[in-house]
Amino acid sequence: MNQVIETILNHRSIRSFEDRPLSQEQIQTIVESAQAASTSSFIQAYSIIGVSDKEKKTKLAAIAGNQSYVENNGHFFIFCADLHRHALIGKMEGKEVEPSIESTEKFMVALIDAALAAQNAVIAAESMGIGICYIGGIRNNLEEVVKLLKTPERVIPLFGIAIGYPAKISGQKPRLPFNHVYHENVYEENEQKYIEELQEYNEIIQKYYVERTGGKRNDTWTSQMGTMLEKQSRMYMREFVESIKMNLR
Amino acid sequence: MNQVIETILNHRSIRSFEDRPLSQEQIQTIVESAQAASTSSFIQAYSIIGVSDKEKKTKLAAIAGNQSYVENNGHFFIFCADLHRHALIGKMEGKEVEPSIESTEKFMVALIDAALAAQNAVIAAESMGIGICYIGGIRNNLEEVVKLLKTPERVIPLFGIAIGYPAKISGQKPRLPFNHVYHENVYEENEQKYIEELQEYNEIIQKYYVERTGGKRNDTWTSQMGTMLEKQSRMYMREFVESIKMNLR
Repeated sequence: MNQVIETILNHRSIRSFEDRPLSQEQIQTIVESAQAASTSSFIQAYSIIGVSDKEKKTKLAAIAGNQSYVENNGHFFIFCADLHRHALIGKMEGKEVEPSIESTEKFMVALIDAALAAQNAVIAAESMGIGICYIGGIRNNLEEVVKLLKTPERVIPLFGIAIGYPAKISGQKPRLPFNHVYHENVYEENEQKYIEELQEYNEIIQKYYVERTGGKRNDTWTSQMGTMLEKQSRMYMREFVESIKMNLR
Repeated sequence: MNQVIETILNHRSIRSFEDRPLSQEQIQTIVESAQAASTSSFIQAYSIIGVSDKEKKTKLAAIAGNQSYVENNGHFFIFCADLHRHALIGKMEGKEVEPSIESTEKFMVALIDAALAAQNAVIAAESMGIGICYIGGIRNNLEEVVKLLKTPERVIPLFGIAIGYPAKISGQKPRLPFNHVYHENVYEENEQKYIEELQEYNEIIQKYYVERTGGKRNDTWTSQMGTMLEKQSRMYMREFVESIKMNLR
């Protein structure tokens, strides 16, 4: 196994960081790594906002549900899907680009572009011994985030990434069985087999929680997911996305 | 610079592969690397379909706009946003999960989850000396792709990744200037500066094309983007997404 795959397989989310800021050089390497990712038809439909301002970080931590590691870390990045640049290009080039950039297709392209870049940033950081945690919690209130970061129309702050020197190393949660996630030539058609794989995975997750908590926690993955998904969260998203002219047409 | 960052920065899309299939072990390492990526609240909302069947690959190549490297490569992966699993979990656990999994928020979560996994797969492959090319072209006709792969409702095949031993190494296109993509604390508010950065980048891209084509091609990035975005493509996407019950509510 080479060093790259070792880094990838060793990933865990870090939720406690040393009080030690990243250097400008580290930030630059992380952003350049992000930019090296593939981008759909060279569209480069994302932006990255680095947040170092203490007050802004405190507010972001509150929005994310009082996650202290949003405030206390080596650097906080926010990855945005960004078609603002392309709206401007329409004006510069005298082309009518609105129907295209307000389509569901381009919304998807921008999200995927931003996520590919983010994962490169994460792997680059982890290879330098720095830990990371994705922060989807900023989506609890994107209107507030937009005000804080002054992002223009057609920019969606998708998620944050808290980055820094780990103060506490966490464990790795076992993933879904390989055969359940990976299909050969066709998606699994046998629903019974599919359910059995989930049950098999439930046992693995239950065992993981029991061992980790000394028996205090013993839920399965499907029960955890069922409980989470029964709760409707961030149901304002469609309205928000349309309000900033990502129109999902 | 460590080996990981070197791999990341050395990325280029490969569009010509040797006739040499990936081994099962390589496929397994690539998929396990994908699975090691972060996933929003442990939701694991993606699936991967490996396509080895010759006939299916030929059909996918045609859908993608006759891209020969979709057919001829070491292995072809399709990454799917997947909430089918979670609909089933709703039934297993007796929970009403539909409003949640039919929301724009969860659509975004599934897309991001799949993209993070894909980029891990790509970096893992590239670290083994294998080349890759993302294939967004499968979105030209997702109805056909769904029939070919027999994906159930709530699964969107997002993109393919052609993987294999490079027969021809391509060049690296310069990315947007660092300062244009990376903002500190607030998004760039000075539109004039923003436009100047695009013009500066235009010169870099023009020079790149002139040098690469011996003067035959000399377009700028903004002209390329303007022309591309004036054309409305894949405008059926919203309807498709809703037809498979990813309802964007």
